[in-house]
Amino acid sequence: MGDNRPASGEDSLIARYFKPLATDAGAFGLDDDAAVLNARSGEEIVVTTDAIVAGVHFLDDDPPDTVARKALRVNLSDLAAKGAEPAGFVMTLALVSADDAWLTAFARALGEDAISFACPLLGGDTVSTPGPLTVSITAFGRVGAGKMVHRSGAHPGDRVLVSGTIGDAALGLDILKGGHIAQALANDRAGREVLVARYRVPEPRNTFAGAVRDFANAAMDVSDGLAGDLTKLCAASGVSALIDLPSIPTSPPAAKLLHAGATGIETLLSGGDDYEILCTAVEARFEALAAEARRAGIALTSIGTVIAGDHPPRFLDAQGAEIALKRLSYSHF
Amino acid sequence: MGDNRPASGEDSLIARYFKPLATDAGAFGLDDDAAVLNARSGEEIVVTTDAIVAGVHFLDDDPPDTVARKALRVNLSDLAAKGAEPAGFVMTLALVSADDAWLTAFARALGEDAISFACPLLGGDTVSTPGPLTVSITAFGRVGAGKMVHRSGAHPGDRVLVSGTIGDAALGLDILKGGHIAQALANDRAGREVLVARYRVPEPRNTFAGAVRDFANAAMDVSDGLAGDLTKLCAASGVSALIDLPSIPTSPPAAKLLHAGATGIETLLSGGDDYEILCTAVEARFEALAAEARRAGIALTSIGTVIAGDHPPRFLDAQGAEIALKRLSYSHF
Repeated sequence: MGDNRPASGEDSLIARYFKPLATDAGAFGLDDDAAVLNARSGEEIVVTTDAIVAGVHFLDDDPPDTVARKALRVNLSDLAAKGAEPAGFVMTLALVSADDAWLTAFARALGEDAISFACPLLGGDTVSTPGPLTVSITAFGRVGAGKMVHRSGAHPGDRVLVSGTIGDAALGLDILKGGHIAQALANDRAGREVLVARYRVPEPRNTFAGAVRDFANAAMDVSDGLAGDLTKLCAASGVSALIDLPSIPTSPPAAKLLHAGATGIETLLSGGDDYEILCTAVEARFEALAAEARRAGIALTSIGTVIAGDHPPRFLDAQGAEIALKRLSYSHF
Repeated sequence: MGDNRPASGEDSLIARYFKPLATDAGAFGLDDDAAVLNARSGEEIVVTTDAIVAGVHFLDDDPPDTVARKALRVNLSDLAAKGAEPAGFVMTLALVSADDAWLTAFARALGEDAISFACPLLGGDTVSTPGPLTVSITAFGRVGAGKMVHRSGAHPGDRVLVSGTIGDAALGLDILKGGHIAQALANDRAGREVLVARYRVPEPRNTFAGAVRDFANAAMDVSDGLAGDLTKLCAASGVSALIDLPSIPTSPPAAKLLHAGATGIETLLSGGDDYEILCTAVEARFEALAAEARRAGIALTSIGTVIAGDHPPRFLDAQGAEIALKRLSYSHF
């Protein structure tokens, strides 16, 4: 190109940090006002959008690389739960200032995740804000026409399944905020680090998306707390569920905290930021789903059963007694 | 549905204000985590994303209906300039608080625009922020495969064309901020209102998108200032341009201010927020483009010529003397 590139700070910022991430032909190297998504024959484009705000979804002093990964991964998690393969994303970055070190680390981590999840940057908008830093991503996935997995497909008799472990991120956030979990794990640095990492950098289950698409009746990702998200899934499906609390999968540090009485099951179930997959499947398909989970190296736990009815899901303790949860999920308002 | 809907503030907010806007089947009534976009055979999906931030892109006390319309229209303007027909949008709304009167007016106006521009709400995310209010929209359009109009297609000899009038929004912003334009138009309330309306509620040229697609070599929307945006278009195309300043189209109040010396052509050319279409076309296609503009009721003005070269566009006064512009466009950083 010639020497007539405008010296606009915004354009040079985009060229410097984000152009290298725009590896898809449809991104036009971020040189245009729009990107193009090609839909292959017989496919649909799945669209999901999630924003993260400093001080709300991540902490002001979280490292830039974890902010970047979280921003993309919360969207990748939605695609995985819908059974879709990542196709790309657009990002709006509302920045308080254009700090070189911060942007370099942010863009590098975003680029690494874009490659490892095969989800290239297609376009975006960079704007200034008096604060707080906000990263809004819209991600696209591909799925066979009519094959997107909905919240609304659960049937009485289905098993209720969840990937990974639940509640770690809520405990990690408590540690970062200097709450009592930090004290309870004062002598367990590794445990603290595991929980903090789970808050800062979710592990979206995209390698499990195909199994969800092929074998699950209903699915969603767990982002606002398992109890509240299951309640939403049941409502969308017009069903209820019985959940066996002792079977809720917990990580070693979370189990240790539960055992010591430093946290309660309600905290784990309503904490949010898990980014695991909650799904339901008929009994006959459970083994196929479990086999796919093992192949993907993902823990998959059966935590209960879908039942008929329109009451909220019931959570039963080891004695089969119902535990009433005061709080189901995180809510912004 | 049953009585097991969660009482989450965020969900009830979405159900109350935004569900009525989700008229497309692919939105699933906003009851799922993702939406589906169907690409018709032989078509591509054009994706564009633009955010508006209180205090940056609109004023804190702008009415909620104008904030809603501006948020959607700045994206519709991109689709129009790319020659795409609107297909829908997703929105991330970062709210400081959930104020009923504000949200009611915001959602009503957004819904009206979604209908009049045939661009339904497909999904979104509502998050809390300590501020400022930020509306981030990703809009989708449909265009025949390979037919998206790029910035990079301008050729020497093309006419440079622009829709509507230029500079009104910058003058309107000055009025809203109580600048000297407000004084210069102290006795012209109608003139002030025209300019303020141009700042608050852009008129995207979507009825002209088909003509751009059929007859233009290159196009983009004018959002950051005509001078800077033309410089970007020329850079992307590897060309330069000669612009005839007296032919820049201005509205009656802008022309009056120019004549009175209360503003200068540089302010109009670099002000931003015009949301008009800048395009280039070969001479042989100009008449067809002009006829389509007349049919759509849109003023289309020939303001200069694309020439070979890699220097920035040159702006010539009535005597053919080059006017050096100190500022080309608005930049966030």
